[in-house]
Amino acid sequence: MAWDFETDPEYQAKLDWADAFVRAEVEPLDLVFADQQFVPLDEARRKIVDPLKEEVRRQGLWATHLGPELGGQGHGQLKLALLNEILGRSQWAPIVFGCQAPDTGNAEIIAHYGTPAQKERYLAPLLAGEIFSSYSMTEPQAGADPARFTTRATRDGDDWVIDGWKFFSSNARTASFLIVMAVTDPEVSAYEGMSMFLVPTDTPGVEIVRDVGLFGDPPGEGGHALIRYAGVRVPADALLGAEGGAFAVAQTRLGGGRIHHAMRTIGLAQKAFDMMCERALSRETAGSRLADKQFVQGYIADSYAQLVQFRLFVLHTAWKIDKYDDYRRVRKDIATAKVVMPTVLHDIAWRAMQVHGALGVTNELPLFRMIHGAAVMGLADGPTEVHKVTVAKQVLRDHRPTDDIWPSEWLPQKRAAARAKFADHLELEVGNL
Amino acid sequence: MAWDFETDPEYQAKLDWADAFVRAEVEPLDLVFADQQFVPLDEARRKIVDPLKEEVRRQGLWATHLGPELGGQGHGQLKLALLNEILGRSQWAPIVFGCQAPDTGNAEIIAHYGTPAQKERYLAPLLAGEIFSSYSMTEPQAGADPARFTTRATRDGDDWVIDGWKFFSSNARTASFLIVMAVTDPEVSAYEGMSMFLVPTDTPGVEIVRDVGLFGDPPGEGGHALIRYAGVRVPADALLGAEGGAFAVAQTRLGGGRIHHAMRTIGLAQKAFDMMCERALSRETAGSRLADKQFVQGYIADSYAQLVQFRLFVLHTAWKIDKYDDYRRVRKDIATAKVVMPTVLHDIAWRAMQVHGALGVTNELPLFRMIHGAAVMGLADGPTEVHKVTVAKQVLRDHRPTDDIWPSEWLPQKRAAARAKFADHLELEVGNL
Amino acid sequence: MAWDFETDPEYQAKLDWADAFVRAEVEPLDLVFADQQFVPLDEARRKIVDPLKEEVRRQGLWATHLGPELGGQGHGQLKLALLNEILGRSQWAPIVFGCQAPDTGNAEIIAHYGTPAQKERYLAPLLAGEIFSSYSMTEPQAGADPARFTTRATRDGDDWVIDGWKFFSSNARTASFLIVMAVTDPEVSAYEGMSMFLVPTDTPGVEIVRDVGLFGDPPGEGGHALIRYAGVRVPADALLGAEGGAFAVAQTRLGGGRIHHAMRTIGLAQKAFDMMCERALSRETAGSRLADKQFVQGYIADSYAQLVQFRLFVLHTAWKIDKYDDYRRVRKDIATAKVVMPTVLHDIAWRAMQVHGALGVTNELPLFRMIHGAAVMGLADGPTEVHKVTVAKQVLRDHRPTDDIWPSEWLPQKRAAARAKFADHLELEVGNL
Amino acid sequence: MAWDFETDPEYQAKLDWADAFVRAEVEPLDLVFADQQFVPLDEARRKIVDPLKEEVRRQGLWATHLGPELGGQGHGQLKLALLNEILGRSQWAPIVFGCQAPDTGNAEIIAHYGTPAQKERYLAPLLAGEIFSSYSMTEPQAGADPARFTTRATRDGDDWVIDGWKFFSSNARTASFLIVMAVTDPEVSAYEGMSMFLVPTDTPGVEIVRDVGLFGDPPGEGGHALIRYAGVRVPADALLGAEGGAFAVAQTRLGGGRIHHAMRTIGLAQKAFDMMCERALSRETAGSRLADKQFVQGYIADSYAQLVQFRLFVLHTAWKIDKYDDYRRVRKDIATAKVVMPTVLHDIAWRAMQVHGALGVTNELPLFRMIHGAAVMGLADGPTEVHKVTVAKQVLRDHRPTDDIWPSEWLPQKRAAARAKFADHLELEVGNL
Repeated sequence: MAWDFETDPEYQAKLDWADAFVRAEVEPLDLVFADQQFVPLDEARRKIVDPLKEEVRRQGLWATHLGPELGGQGHGQLKLALLNEILGRSQWAPIVFGCQAPDTGNAEIIAHYGTPAQKERYLAPLLAGEIFSSYSMTEPQAGADPARFTTRATRDGDDWVIDGWKFFSSNARTASFLIVMAVTDPEVSAYEGMSMFLVPTDTPGVEIVRDVGLFGDPPGEGGHALIRYAGVRVPADALLGAEGGAFAVAQTRLGGGRIHHAMRTIGLAQKAFDMMCERALSRETAGSRLADKQFVQGYIADSYAQLVQFRLFVLHTAWKIDKYDDYRRVRKDIATAKVVMPTVLHDIAWRAMQVHGALGVTNELPLFRMIHGAAVMGLADGPTEVHKVTVAKQVLRDHRPTDDIWPSEWLPQKRAAARAKFADHLELEVGNL
Repeated sequence: MAWDFETDPEYQAKLDWADAFVRAEVEPLDLVFADQQFVPLDEARRKIVDPLKEEVRRQGLWATHLGPELGGQGHGQLKLALLNEILGRSQWAPIVFGCQAPDTGNAEIIAHYGTPAQKERYLAPLLAGEIFSSYSMTEPQAGADPARFTTRATRDGDDWVIDGWKFFSSNARTASFLIVMAVTDPEVSAYEGMSMFLVPTDTPGVEIVRDVGLFGDPPGEGGHALIRYAGVRVPADALLGAEGGAFAVAQTRLGGGRIHHAMRTIGLAQKAFDMMCERALSRETAGSRLADKQFVQGYIADSYAQLVQFRLFVLHTAWKIDKYDDYRRVRKDIATAKVVMPTVLHDIAWRAMQVHGALGVTNELPLFRMIHGAAVMGLADGPTEVHKVTVAKQVLRDHRPTDDIWPSEWLPQKRAAARAKFADHLELEVGNL
Repeated sequence: MAWDFETDPEYQAKLDWADAFVRAEVEPLDLVFADQQFVPLDEARRKIVDPLKEEVRRQGLWATHLGPELGGQGHGQLKLALLNEILGRSQWAPIVFGCQAPDTGNAEIIAHYGTPAQKERYLAPLLAGEIFSSYSMTEPQAGADPARFTTRATRDGDDWVIDGWKFFSSNARTASFLIVMAVTDPEVSAYEGMSMFLVPTDTPGVEIVRDVGLFGDPPGEGGHALIRYAGVRVPADALLGAEGGAFAVAQTRLGGGRIHHAMRTIGLAQKAFDMMCERALSRETAGSRLADKQFVQGYIADSYAQLVQFRLFVLHTAWKIDKYDDYRRVRKDIATAKVVMPTVLHDIAWRAMQVHGALGVTNELPLFRMIHGAAVMGLADGPTEVHKVTVAKQVLRDHRPTDDIWPSEWLPQKRAAARAKFADHLELEVGNL
Repeated sequence: MAWDFETDPEYQAKLDWADAFVRAEVEPLDLVFADQQFVPLDEARRKIVDPLKEEVRRQGLWATHLGPELGGQGHGQLKLALLNEILGRSQWAPIVFGCQAPDTGNAEIIAHYGTPAQKERYLAPLLAGEIFSSYSMTEPQAGADPARFTTRATRDGDDWVIDGWKFFSSNARTASFLIVMAVTDPEVSAYEGMSMFLVPTDTPGVEIVRDVGLFGDPPGEGGHALIRYAGVRVPADALLGAEGGAFAVAQTRLGGGRIHHAMRTIGLAQKAFDMMCERALSRETAGSRLADKQFVQGYIADSYAQLVQFRLFVLHTAWKIDKYDDYRRVRKDIATAKVVMPTVLHDIAWRAMQVHGALGVTNELPLFRMIHGAAVMGLADGPTEVHKVTVAKQVLRDHRPTDDIWPSEWLPQKRAAARAKFADHLELEVGNL
């Protein structure tokens, strides 16, 4: 029970296996089935993907962070962090290892708040990666501010009827169901008047108005839906958690999700870093290798410093989640990781791009996609600015103001006190020094 | 034997004691006896300081990093790091806890390489903080590049005669002896032709030509000597280590010293951070507390992120030093800490200064001294730029170039390989996707 | 003849016209004919584009920077800079105004170095935007270092035969001819042994091996060709300029091109800035407009500061080009603009993206394309790092080393000199102050 | 009447003279009479300084920015900017050239608002640099927020009686009078209820409680007074401007002062830059000159870019002040200069310091004093953060919100409009592209 920065050899062996397995078996899926990881498997893909999942289960690495009751290993967040550093390199790897966002978070919601029928219908296939889900929260006019949400769920007999618009509902086009946050009591604050609903995607009135693409997506292939909910009728038990309890449902999920993103981001940034190093060693210009030029050495040193510091911080945060199991005790650190993450990935990928010259800005290297990913990380689950405010507020809880007009470290006052303290020993008159 | 980010309760109790003790008993020394910590104790100061040292010994925290054979506790670097976070706030604390630079490093040199007579004369009083020492290496024309040193030690019978100039020999004016690096064989490279000597400060020919002050030092009170060595004659056993072995002597010492600076820097930066938070909570302007303004919240969030990440990294590096006891395995991380340290302190102290308004730039708060200290940290023991090169070179040892003209992550090639891999399953013709 | 920061009213009226014209008539082309500006006009597009060009000619704004002998207005670079701030917002605008890169630079090469036959065949249609050209210089293994180019042109009777590879030959797929830099004398340095050739694209042996796409380009629609030249035979007069004179040909062209990019970049950055301001004023979150939040105010202030400073600097550089007509006198400033340009665009577009939330990272706003464009600007015509070295070298030509071991601003020496100077007046003994 | 970036040759000759004169005759004063420029001349200093002032008058460069009615040249701000680039290098130069802050601003206040008696007693000697003045505005509890000022002036018969505290009243200890901002009507807002008073320093009740020193000042030699005003009685005509009109008086003065600081800052930054270049050319380490190392080349390039851009911007702002003579039209640019100024000086001086190695952090070079000066520039006349808000607010006045939920640059909408526009030509069905 004291500081230790090492992985136990047994789990390290599993990580080493995962690293080789992802490189050899999973990363090729990213190249052949790009952006299809949230499309239900057809027969061709199933023949490839199912055996990979099976192998992961055999190795005891399936859904490591979930408890056995959800088919997981109960390994906790720190071990997931170590694994996610490997999985983060690949689009498909989280699918193959049973820990993809947003499904794993949505599964936890259903496990907590779902009815037996909902669990039966959705939980197992969702955990298995057979079906997919969408978290339908943000609205076009509201951004990160839930107080501005207007999508409304109204009681009608035993049913709820949902009307409104949602934006950036990722994966909605292939999802079996949506988790929708809606106002159920407009008279009270958003923190008390919003509720969460499980809405099958094929419910009448659910309309994907536009499937918004990210920059770089092929035309018409965006995966972030603008959805119109027009008189969408769901039964009473579509309500997840208590009426008015949407935030309780959302909060835990987002906390976990944010730190999972950070874990995977380390893997991506490590990949960009490795590419930069390979390039620096491989390329000569103006009489010497890039590796011998101070500008490039500076890029490598600065990138290494950012990456190793961030990695330790994320592991530390994961360790705290495991240890305290109390969101309030880790909220500051999760928000800090959220704030730092986009910058780490941006800076390292940008430098790697620069070192690759023109090739770096093409679609023949993954570097600019990482830079774009860094931007997404700075906006998804709330923009960086909002999380900075959270960090500051949480930090300030541990500090106190002074009543004095001068700071408590004001030297004239401290010096006078010190002189008074030593006055006897020194036979000094106070004020005479 | 697995990741753990916690201090054992027993040592934590000692740290808590040290924190209160430094605050109550040691920091006042900084205010009454500023810049006198390297002046041998007079009777007045002895009456105050000796009991404090005695108390530290009683608590088992004297020279925690040194082995028992040097009067220390054998605690290693990680525990020193945790302690140094506390001591770093105070000029006098390292003296009171028996771990002040450069004396502790110089003591290690004498313990390793000194003759029995040298040990008898210097070692015990140096460890006890009764006498002081100076490391006389840099030369005015040479900066951080030992290959440009010209101070010469020539054999003359059984003696060595030293001639030349040294710059920035800190504490020389109050030191009992100097550790002098001099060229003994100009025919070979600096890495083989320089030797280390122990020169008592009162040896004829040692002349402090100018005692250079740092910015902010009172006129004429600088402590960084420009020294002329004019025919300074020392006996054969003044040679420390092998003839030509100056670098072996210097290396270990500097590695340790650099990470010790980093440990103490965390304490200083934490103090600046605490001041910033107190001010933010205490001060109102334009209708609200500084704590409620986003610019200040941003300063706090960015500072917290820098500090906690850097702290974990330094602890991690200290842990590696303890674990591997092999300079080559930690050189990269020590250099990284050296690179990051000045920026962390600069940024946090600068923001804290800004939040204090005009008071921040006066001599009534310690903040600008910290900013100056950050600049010193970026130059002492080699400038940041040199250490960035070291980080890059060490990092690149773990990477390999590719022979191909395209990077190994080049997507067209990887995509082709992936298609080939899955060709059978998919009954695809390669190239047809 | 003194400092003046104003455009004369007559030209300002033309700029105002251009601004409205581009917004109403040209920007729509970017939306309907995206990425087709370098495709020779078909009938449908011709019906739209030709009248626009005609209108520009009528307004006297066609090819403003070129001399009348090339069909231009002879307005010089400063006026082009003012115009390019407007054109830079639009892909199509440079085409419509007769000043698109790389054709305008390539036209200047032909005008200088071409044979009458080449001029007759290529110059007029190129200037008219009827045909297009490609500058085929970089090689896959060489990046920005011409010394590593290996594409070879060998004399064979009256012909030259070209063999080798070129990378990132932009617009090659739609170009009528390529300007190819090739080694004609491998025995001497690159600066003396390379020559420039005009190669019609349909010459046998010219093979576009791969049309490389930028990140964000639709699959298979890249415009930056990897070209294999296999025994490409051209007649003697395909040589542009002197044998061995490739650099003389290239230099002027690149200088102009670099500053043209900077001019257009200002227009793009201004657009991102305007978008950020509109969004800040339009969007409310957490109880107030984005415009009222300090983080956003900081983005706006920092962006404004970057943009206005850079704009003045580019205008200043353009003015110097006009005034001195001497590349050596403006090389430092052109390189400086090249260095600063990507950062200005990156920072402003990134902040604008952040202020737009999730929409900012989609393909429904032009912001991420600008960020990508910033990256391209940091690599095209040589990476930022190379231009930083150029700036430093040029700056240092105006400075001198000191022979003294201390800097000439070393205060002890200067203070002694000052005391000596005033010794009489003050009846001071020098050294006594 | 068009863009011109050149000084007319006649004035340039004056600047050249000033440059040589300051270097040879004025800068030595900084070394021999450091920090005494605001101490009334004794006979020894008068013998040196008076002839220098006389020479400046002869050259027609005395108080160039003031009108002839104040003994100046009426040259305006742009010419002052060019001159201040030279004067900014030296503490004494503004004194010798009749343009030192705060006296020149305070003189303008007296000229505008003073009684004939006040003008007679103070104006001429103040302009002549025979007496000095202090601007006594900030209060210890209030920082940059006038709404928090509590110093009170109460009418008592024909007199005003002032009670309260003021902080950071620079030069108060040697000033003949203080300009004091005090609350005259606590019932209304600060912007209407504060008035400005001229208070001779020797008025009974004016007590300098502490003379606060900047970091680096010798102990006890600070020049920024904490003043207690205890029943300070002044006659009715001590009121400057209207009762309740303090802001009108203060505003103009601060605007000018802020841009004057920026002008002088350019001179300081240029000096740091020149020192960096000299050092880079003079120093060798690790086998080559510093000038040949990319890190140093990067410092030079980045510094040059910052400096030349900022210089043009300040000149541009000065030109606008001259042209429009309307504070509202230049407020945005003055605030922008205020925001950028500290960073330019900090960054360049810090890099110059780094390139000088250990010498850079000593008191033997002026570099760290510049860094400290940069911090002062970021706080004096309002902290950077406040001015960023001003810039943003001023910028946003020129922009409009959109009523739409999507930005006006939202591509789907713009694309639809463009298709509609070209529908006829293209015989396209809208929506079909």
